[in-house]
Amino acid sequence: MNVRLRGQVRPYRTVGYDPRRNEVILIEQRLLPHEFRLVATRDYRETARAIRDMIVRGAPAIAATAAYGLAQGVRAFRGRGVDRLSAQVERVFGTIRDARPTAVDPLNAMVGVRQAMRAGGTVEEQQELAAAAARSFADTSVAQCEAIGRHGMPLIKEGARVLTHCNAGWLACVDVGTATAPLYAAQAAGRGFHVFCDETRPRCQGASLTAWELAQQGVSHQVIADNAAGHLMQRGEIDLVIVGSDRVLGRTGEIANKIGTYTKAVLAHRHRIPFYVAIPLSTIDWDLRSGFDIPIEERDEAEVLGAWGAPLAPKRRAGAAKPVGRGSCRAYVRVANPTSGARNPGFDVTPADLITGIITPAGIFRPRELWRKRGQLGGPAT
Amino acid sequence: MNVRLRGQVRPYRTVGYDPRRNEVILIEQRLLPHEFRLVATRDYRETARAIRDMIVRGAPAIAATAAYGLAQGVRAFRGRGVDRLSAQVERVFGTIRDARPTAVDPLNAMVGVRQAMRAGGTVEEQQELAAAAARSFADTSVAQCEAIGRHGMPLIKEGARVLTHCNAGWLACVDVGTATAPLYAAQAAGRGFHVFCDETRPRCQGASLTAWELAQQGVSHQVIADNAAGHLMQRGEIDLVIVGSDRVLGRTGEIANKIGTYTKAVLAHRHRIPFYVAIPLSTIDWDLRSGFDIPIEERDEAEVLGAWGAPLAPKRRAGAAKPVGRGSCRAYVRVANPTSGARNPGFDVTPADLITGIITPAGIFRPRELWRKRGQLGGPAT
Repeated sequence: MNVRLRGQVRPYRTVGYDPRRNEVILIEQRLLPHEFRLVATRDYRETARAIRDMIVRGAPAIAATAAYGLAQGVRAFRGRGVDRLSAQVERVFGTIRDARPTAVDPLNAMVGVRQAMRAGGTVEEQQELAAAAARSFADTSVAQCEAIGRHGMPLIKEGARVLTHCNAGWLACVDVGTATAPLYAAQAAGRGFHVFCDETRPRCQGASLTAWELAQQGVSHQVIADNAAGHLMQRGEIDLVIVGSDRVLGRTGEIANKIGTYTKAVLAHRHRIPFYVAIPLSTIDWDLRSGFDIPIEERDEAEVLGAWGAPLAPKRRAGAAKPVGRGSCRAYVRVANPTSGARNPGFDVTPADLITGIITPAGIFRPRELWRKRGQLGGPAT
Repeated sequence: MNVRLRGQVRPYRTVGYDPRRNEVILIEQRLLPHEFRLVATRDYRETARAIRDMIVRGAPAIAATAAYGLAQGVRAFRGRGVDRLSAQVERVFGTIRDARPTAVDPLNAMVGVRQAMRAGGTVEEQQELAAAAARSFADTSVAQCEAIGRHGMPLIKEGARVLTHCNAGWLACVDVGTATAPLYAAQAAGRGFHVFCDETRPRCQGASLTAWELAQQGVSHQVIADNAAGHLMQRGEIDLVIVGSDRVLGRTGEIANKIGTYTKAVLAHRHRIPFYVAIPLSTIDWDLRSGFDIPIEERDEAEVLGAWGAPLAPKRRAGAAKPVGRGSCRAYVRVANPTSGARNPGFDVTPADLITGIITPAGIFRPRELWRKRGQLGGPAT
């Protein structure tokens, strides 16, 4: 999507690949929203490190990064014979897999690349096929998001005021995003609307990443405290909620997403405001039988006890921010009482009865319809 | 209540008065939770400035400060004759009133002091009466909070897990607090319980002030992101919600309180968790006929776009924090995208049907009972 740099608007993807230099190109997300910088990883080890160090985050984005990283490692092979290349593939696969061991998306993406390259008879053919499979994985990922946009776009009426939570935007994908896809499609169709971004404590991905994306794209938006959405709904100032999801249960229609999503669904239900969840097909979990079986990660309490940001004066706003230091470019302030601890569940589960629809690349479904329509959605045969 | 300083536990009030030196003694709340310091104002102008600059905040606390400030100005009078003293009273009254022009509580408190001193025939008598009236106002304020504690205490069962929002603690009152009063009473009765403090973005009074209070008092507690309460309720980890209020409508039972309170009431209702509001009688508004008539202040967007705190390392936790600079001792980081704006409503309104009970110094009432019981509650005769 668009990035405005020194007055110029240029298109970028979150994850790209330079075949000439055999480099994976990533947006350095730890510097956002205060600085925009691209990072080129020169070999698969650097690509694995970029995943581990969260230069890139978001399941679809790290999946594409892993696919390109595997192709990169295969391409760098200088030995002879497909057997030796096979050993190299396993080394690269293992290194990238271990960079984010709990995530399933990069694993599936790399399995696909590995599968595709086996059709080649020579090292060169396998190298070509790996690169093509990685590129195809990334393009398919973008196409899925675009399809989400086409299906979701009619929900964004002229003048709509849309609430979103956390970041399910193009920075979490290869491009376009999931929850943001219908918004960008509506914008492209010339429709006017306004987005409220929940700041999404404790890590504030809404205030930092989603707000940055929408600003770059020229979409009208405002950040709100997570506490404010209920009041705005009560006063009739929100027409629609769209969020992403980390896992949708195909059997029950429950969805897991960033902590606070459930609260917004409860509020939307009370106010009869439509609540939509936008996902690629890979987000559907066809196995689990209850949302209570989804493990809820308890994260570092420092996230709740303070906040990371740029040490700017409170009033500074217009224009681009200056770089704000070294490393992650993020200063930390301790907000809470220094002798107090915190609870910090990272995700919550929203039941099907609070969800108006699931927007997928294959269309919009009622959450309880997923299992019946699993044939359309890449679900299991039985 | 208690403050732990260098290993010693000592009792303090939020607002006090030193008759020997004619000084109003305040806790410098802008330094909390990172530093505990008392401030003594040497004359009524300094007292007015302390109110204006938010060294002291919370309606009951600034009311008592205003009462003491008026008595302080009267006591400092060196002229002759009650007529000239009257002119001095008006000067002091006006100066303190103008320090926080929208607040009604300090005004009412000073009217009471002015009324009481008129019974004196001489300057000295009037000075004595003013000081006595101010002291009595503060003591009555504490007694009201203690009565809230007695009535609310039976709600805190052994092992209860209580959620509170913002700060309705002793720092907002002269002592004891409103929402915290039942907790401190239960603690004094030897009951064990645990408090979840909503951090209460954007100003984080829960994470900073309530957590500090509870830590000083030795009450088991944890800070949570405002987003986390819904998840904890869903998993059965919250038994009770108690909050304070800025205004309770005696005619309808609606309550206005810090932004995010309404959301917690909606969540509690869905999970059949009791939701209580603790208030002194002065918080009841007998005039307004609808919650929609309560003006909702739109505050500075810098509050939402960033956070104030102490520049400590994220991992630092045990032991007392060091002083962290000059002025308000608070560093600001910009969290949100620097070119984005914010909406920042400061309060919201919770309807009567979501409120289990209103805990007052006169007992616990159902919200729709207030008007019928207005005789007991200091309401109007008609």
